[in-house]
Formats: sequence, structure tokens, C-alpha cells
Amino acid sequence: MSAIENLKKLTTEAAIVSSSASTLGWDQETYLPEGAHAWRARQLAWLSGRCHELSTSKEFGGALKSALDEVDSSDERSVGNLREMQRRFDRATKLPASLVERDSELSSHAKHAWSEARKKSDFSIFAPHLEALLELSREKAELWGYENESYDALIETYERGATTASVSKVFDELGPELRTIAAAAVERTKANPVKLPSGPYPVEQQTAFNEKVARSFGFDFNRGRIDTTAHPFCTTLGPSDIRLTTRYDESDFTSSLLGVMHEAGHGLYEQGLRQEDFGLPAGDSVSLGIHESQSRLWENHVGRSRQFWEHWLPVATDHFPQLKEIDIDDFLAVIHRAEFSFIRVEADEATYDLHILLRFNLEHRLMRGDLTVSDLPSAWNEAFEQSFGMTPPDDAHGCLQDIHWSMGGLGYFPTYTLGNLSGAQFFNAAMEDDAVRSGFAKAEYGPLLNWLGRNVHDLGATLDPSDIVRRATGNEPSAGAHLEHLRLRYTK
Amino acid sequence: MSAIENLKKLTTEAAIVSSSASTLGWDQETYLPEGAHAWRARQLAWLSGRCHELSTSKEFGGALKSALDEVDSSDERSVGNLREMQRRFDRATKLPASLVERDSELSSHAKHAWSEARKKSDFSIFAPHLEALLELSREKAELWGYENESYDALIETYERGATTASVSKVFDELGPELRTIAAAAVERTKANPVKLPSGPYPVEQQTAFNEKVARSFGFDFNRGRIDTTAHPFCTTLGPSDIRLTTRYDESDFTSSLLGVMHEAGHGLYEQGLRQEDFGLPAGDSVSLGIHESQSRLWENHVGRSRQFWEHWLPVATDHFPQLKEIDIDDFLAVIHRAEFSFIRVEADEATYDLHILLRFNLEHRLMRGDLTVSDLPSAWNEAFEQSFGMTPPDDAHGCLQDIHWSMGGLGYFPTYTLGNLSGAQFFNAAMEDDAVRSGFAKAEYGPLLNWLGRNVHDLGATLDPSDIVRRATGNEPSAGAHLEHLRLRYTK
Repeated sequence: MSAIENLKKLTTEAAIVSSSASTLGWDQETYLPEGAHAWRARQLAWLSGRCHELSTSKEFGGALKSALDEVDSSDERSVGNLREMQRRFDRATKLPASLVERDSELSSHAKHAWSEARKKSDFSIFAPHLEALLELSREKAELWGYENESYDALIETYERGATTASVSKVFDELGPELRTIAAAAVERTKANPVKLPSGPYPVEQQTAFNEKVARSFGFDFNRGRIDTTAHPFCTTLGPSDIRLTTRYDESDFTSSLLGVMHEAGHGLYEQGLRQEDFGLPAGDSVSLGIHESQSRLWENHVGRSRQFWEHWLPVATDHFPQLKEIDIDDFLAVIHRAEFSFIRVEADEATYDLHILLRFNLEHRLMRGDLTVSDLPSAWNEAFEQSFGMTPPDDAHGCLQDIHWSMGGLGYFPTYTLGNLSGAQFFNAAMEDDAVRSGFAKAEYGPLLNWLGRNVHDLGATLDPSDIVRRATGNEPSAGAHLEHLRLRYTK
Repeated sequence: MSAIENLKKLTTEAAIVSSSASTLGWDQETYLPEGAHAWRARQLAWLSGRCHELSTSKEFGGALKSALDEVDSSDERSVGNLREMQRRFDRATKLPASLVERDSELSSHAKHAWSEARKKSDFSIFAPHLEALLELSREKAELWGYENESYDALIETYERGATTASVSKVFDELGPELRTIAAAAVERTKANPVKLPSGPYPVEQQTAFNEKVARSFGFDFNRGRIDTTAHPFCTTLGPSDIRLTTRYDESDFTSSLLGVMHEAGHGLYEQGLRQEDFGLPAGDSVSLGIHESQSRLWENHVGRSRQFWEHWLPVATDHFPQLKEIDIDDFLAVIHRAEFSFIRVEADEATYDLHILLRFNLEHRLMRGDLTVSDLPSAWNEAFEQSFGMTPPDDAHGCLQDIHWSMGGLGYFPTYTLGNLSGAQFFNAAMEDDAVRSGFAKAEYGPLLNWLGRNVHDLGATLDPSDIVRRATGNEPSAGAHLEHLRLRYTK
């Protein structure tokens, strides 16, 4: 067996275990009986233990070394694959097993405390846990190492190659203009407060319509499905098993639909990865930012476009006859509504990134020690007032609203906005292609998916996210395309 | 750690792995996308490999030995638990890993060939596989050991403590009278060919009604659920996660309902096992026969009884208004219809066991070498003509109809009828209890479930099935109660 074949055998075993855990995780969110959560946690802990063992074993390290010795250095894809494997292996083995266990225990307790704290809107319940997680994040950052500051090491977890400096650079470019656009968008909505014709929009019809739309994007139901959960997500249970979820609101069909379009964007990325490389970086998504670029592209650039609705509004009307009452201009005004609101996950396209900039700034300051945990609620509210012109009524609508910090996920938030930025860059580059552009005008998305497949999906994690952006678009990662898109859609 | 605590740690780990595999198996039957089967097979193979390793390890054997040395011999439950553990360990370790792998490969191919053979009704496609499986069954029987004949060792797999002789004894008692009853039942149905009012019976209403009935039996939806599959089953994914499935026919609501009542019987057994003993024989079902006794009891003795429908027909009529057209006598005549038919899984209560007696006889002769594989189709048809007075039109309606042999499951079939027999015995014994009887008259099943819990479920696998019957009923396992039940219901 060649070194790479041996390595592939080992990574496949790890992928079998981790995808089994994903299957149990999916079931936990969709169908698990209420009384069964404790046992499920034990199953998941066992599987993640085995997975960690397999992917940090000496045997794995040895096989990786042999494969690196053997690889043809002119074969960029193979080199990229092995390099990323090495990076992941190094990061995983730098953390002692005891710390990994402590981490898992800490965040399990923290998640529980956060949930209670949010329910009661009582930050003091969560504060000691956040303190401990922050301490642990610093400890991990020291073990992983970083160039300039510890927060770099956390960003690297979710967005390989990105640093505090590189993120700050594009966010600084984004911020001021974003505030102007968001304010204008909110004013425009106030001036033209159109509404969707009233419901009910029956769930059965929503399901049928959403499925048609997902199919038109190219989502392959032979290799995936859509279920219902409280919080929509996309998960991969195997090379041919990509599952989306959404939630239904019978008074507004666009809620489940936009959820499906967003998750289908994630799903198309996963379905576009090379199946034969499943378990290897070459067959894996590269970062959360690039993942988000795909979901935002399909949700916002495609699913909120006039061209899309010129084709699909009549189809939607077949499913929901009350849509006869609304014309396309009013309909677009509905799905382009903008308003300042407290909750990130309910925010519209025009104001969304303001929520992220705020979080990026706060968690960065927390990590640097420029902000203490006890000062977080007031710092949040102050920053919120500055950005949104209003103050959260309580911490449940403020610094307690998101689950991320309770899972120890510092460094995660910026990837949402990075995804918005690169999504816009990808979309613009794709639209320079004649076939993509003429397909888009007719709401035919084969050429667009094809372009994304070639320029993003097929690369897997063999290049850094920023290199993928550079190659695909010919430009440096920047906020320009996203700002231009928002300006056109929300201020004209 | 005491020896038993150590042992419990090991069995819990094995239970975590096997219940994870069950979860993936459940998903495979319910929601797995078409294209995802190959990867799922790899996940399941890996998990079953780990499970086999864990439950046959030297460490496990050592821990078991220490626990046996340590156990208080007056503690019947603990002794029974360890003895059964020893029996399972011995059987598992008697088969070399190479044979287990060959077995799994053989039956995987055989299942595929059987499916094709049945589709084409061409026995020659399946014959060589059955030949090989038969040979392997003989090999396994020799390794396991037996007292009188090799078929004993196969029955022991599914019905511990049962032998060819003990099964033959009750089946010989059953056969002649069963034929008389079945013939009378079929004649009675011909004389009174009532029909259910025509459909549709909407799936949504069926689901709601089935759930009410399952709840009234005591099925705990906090620890279980009901989904839809082509072939109904019940599976346990954890101590508090028992899942049933059924299938829907919009022209006949009793089809999904009787399926749910049957599977709920299995599920109530599983939910009645001690949760703290999950993974140990003390917290496990004892045999397929006892399992089937529970499903048949709830389906037939409860769900097909006049007392049940006196209460539930009005409720059913709320869900399905067309039931106003039928009175309770005609309705009972519908669910007590009997006719001779070719397919076992579609057979009614009065003729079902005839299908089993035929299979028991044939597989016994195959194992003894009194019947060759190539003669099986003609032997089947001959026996069928004798029992049912008609000849299958082809092998798809004859010896190719069941999946069991293709999975190497010789010795499995008799447990269906053993379950019918002990189910009737349990039911009669339970009805001697005043609370059970008066509850039953009012369609209130708490006392019955309680009785089954005390006398069957709670024992787990700490006693032999026949001992459970003896203790619970005060009688030897026999065909008498079942025959009496059929006689009363189908010939009066």
C-alpha cells in the first residue's frame, strides 16, 4: 500500500466515525424523543472520543509523514491536501487529551447555564462560565500558537489563514459605509411599509414549493433531504447524505423558503465536494467563511433577486393563491424590508453585518483583556446604541442572545460577515461568465452552480480561503462587492 | 471498583456502540436518501466490528469471571444476569472472527440474490446462496454445540433453552386442531363477507388515532416515537428511545392501526425493561418468542377484542365519519376475517400459524439433510397444498417470499408461533387478576401493562423463556390457551 493509500484508509475510518456522530447529532435535532437526550450525549461522547483518537494517533502522524515524503511536489492538489492535513493534525495534537475533555465538560455546563441565563435574562448566571471559557480560550491559543495576538489563533480555528489584522482590515472598510446604507434602507422601508398578503400559507404547500426551488438550485434529493427543526441547519452524514432543515411560519412562506435557500447553499457546497475524497481535506469544506459565502450567495444574490421572482412568483402563486393580490414590485419590497432589530438571527440583509461587527469588536476586546466579563453587558448595550440607535431592553435581547460564546466559539462570529463579503465577490465574478449571466436572467442556475463547483467546491480545503477568493475572482478579499450589492438593492 | 461495576462499565460501552448502530439502522429504514446506502453500510460495519470486539474481549471475559466469583449466590436476579452474560459470551467467542466476517459477507450477498430471485420468481438465483448459508449454519451449530441435533443450536440463537424436541412437542399439540379451527374460520368469513366502509381514511387521521390507542396501551412518547416504513418494526436506540414504525393504507385504517398495536406491544416490553440495567441481560429482552408474545397479546387479545372496540369504535368514528355506517358486530366480523392466502405477512390471526408450522418443518428437514435445497420449491408447494388446499402460483408466492433464510436466520420462524402460544397463556393468567379484568372490560390497560411489567418485562433475560411462562402462568408452555382463544373467536 502506498503511503497516501494508507493515510486514506486511516482518514476514511475517522470519517466513518465522525459521520456516524453527525447522524446521531442530526437525529438529536430532528426526531429524538424528549427523554432520550442523556443516552444520546453518551453515544456522542464515545464517538467523538474515538474520532479524536483516530485523528491524533501516532500511526496517523507516521502515515502523514510518509505521504508528505512521497508526494509529487508539482501536484498542487495533493500537496495542498497533505499540508492541510498536517495543519489539522498539529492543531489537534497540540491540545492534550485532558484539555480537550475539560473543554467539552466546560462548554457542556456553560451551554446549560447560558440557556438558563437567557431564559431569565440574568447575565450573572452565565458570567463565571464565560470567564472560564475565556481563560481556556487563552490557554488553547497559547498551545496552538499565533503571530501577533491570541485572538488570531481562535480565528484560525474557523477561518484558516485569517488573522485579527486581516479581518479588521476588511471590516474597517465595511463599517462606515454599511452604517449609511443600513440607515437608508431602514428609512426606505418606513416610507413604503408593504406587507405580504395574510396567511395561512399551509406547511404542506410550503414544503412542496421549497423543494421545487431547492431542486432548481441543483440540490440533489437523491443525496439529501429537508426536515424540520427549531433552528435551521445543514449537516453532512456521508459523501452522499447532506441534510438541510428549516422551520415553518404559516403566516409567512418566505421564512421557511429563505431558510431552505440559505441551507441549500451550504448543501450545494457539500454536494459539490469530491465524493472520492470524503474524509480528506481535498473533499472537505475549507472554512466557515467560504461555507457562509455559498449560503448567502444562494439566499441573497439569487433568492432575493428580481430575476428569481420574475420566474418564481407565478409558481408561488399556484401554491399560495393569495399572492395574486401582490405585484412583483411590492413583493420585492417585502423581501427587501430593513429595520433595526435586537436579534441577530432575525436581522435582514441590510442590517445583519452590523450585528457581527459589534460581536467581533467585543470578543476581540475580551480576549485582549481590554474588556472584562462583568463589563460585557454594559459594553454591549453601549455599542448597540451607537450602531443601531436603540438599547436592548434586557440582556436576553443583548449579550445573552447567541449560543456561540457558551460553546467556547470565540472567533466564529466574523466568518458570517466574511461569508457575505466573499459571497458577493464570487457572485460578481460568476456573472462575468456569459452562460451564468444568461441563465440567471432566466432563473436557470445550472451554469452558476457549475461555476461555483469549478471555482470553489471542487478545490475542497486544498487552498487557503483567501487564495480561493483571489483565484476565483481575480481580486483581493474586500468589502467592495458586498457594499455595492447592498447599495444597489437597498438605497436605489 | 467491584467486579460487577467493572463489568457494567464494559457492557455499557458495548451498549453505547450497538445502540448507535441501531440508530443508524433506524435512519436507514426511515429517512436515508437513496444515494447514501453504500456509506451507511460502511458505518454499520465499523460499528458492529467494534461492538463484537468489545463483547468478546479478554478483558470482558476476565471481568465476567471475577463477577461470577463475587456474586451472592442467593441473589437470583444477579446470578441469572451473569449466567446469561456467560452464555452470550461463550456463544460469541466460540465463533472465530473469520467465520463472523464470512457470515456477514455471505448473507449480504444472499440477501441481494434473494431479492432478485423473488422479483423474478426464479429460485435458481437464490439456491446456491441458500446452500452456502445452510452449510455455514451447520458449521456454526457444530461450534456452538448441541444436545441432540444441529437445529437445536439454531433455535437456541433466538429462543434460549428451546430445542427441536420442545418446539415439536407444542407444535404437534397445536397442528391438527389449528387446521380444524382455521378451516371453520375461513368458512365463516365466506358465509358473512362484510366489508369496511370505503375510504379514504386520511393518513393524518390515522396517525392521530393510532397515537391515541398507543398511549392508551401505555406507550410513553416521551421515550419513543412512531414513524413510517415499508415494513413495520420496533427498535431500541437507547434505554429511553424505543421507536415503532407502521405503514398506511388510505382504504383501510385498521392496517396501520394493527401494525401500531403489534409494534407497541414490542415497544412496551422494551420500555418496561429496567433502564438502569440497559446493556445487561437483566435489562434486555429474553427471546424473540417472548417478544412476540407481547406484540401478539396487544394486537390480538387486546386490539381485536370486542371490549376494546366497544370503547374505541366511537372514537374511531370521530376520526373517520364513514364508520357510522357499520355497527360493532359487522366491524368485529371485518377484523376477524379469515382466509387462506399465500403470503405469511398478510395472513390473519386464524391461519397465521399454519404458515409457521410449514416453515418449521421444512427448515428442520433442510438442516437434518432430509431435504435438499433443490427440492425445496416442490416440497414447499406440496406442504402448502396439504395445509391450505391450494398451490402457490410461483415461488415468489411460495418458498421465496420471506427474507429470513437469506439472512441465515434458520431457527427464527418458530418463535412467531411460540409467541402466539405464550401470549395467550400470559393473557389468560393476567385476566385472573381482578384489576386487570375489570380494567380490560372498560378498555383501561394500566393494570394489564402493570401485570406484564411485573411478570415478564421486569425479569429481563435473567430466566429462560419457558421459566418465565411457568412462573407467570403456573403452567407449562403449551398450545392450549392459544387454541382455546382461536376457537372462541373464530368458530363460535
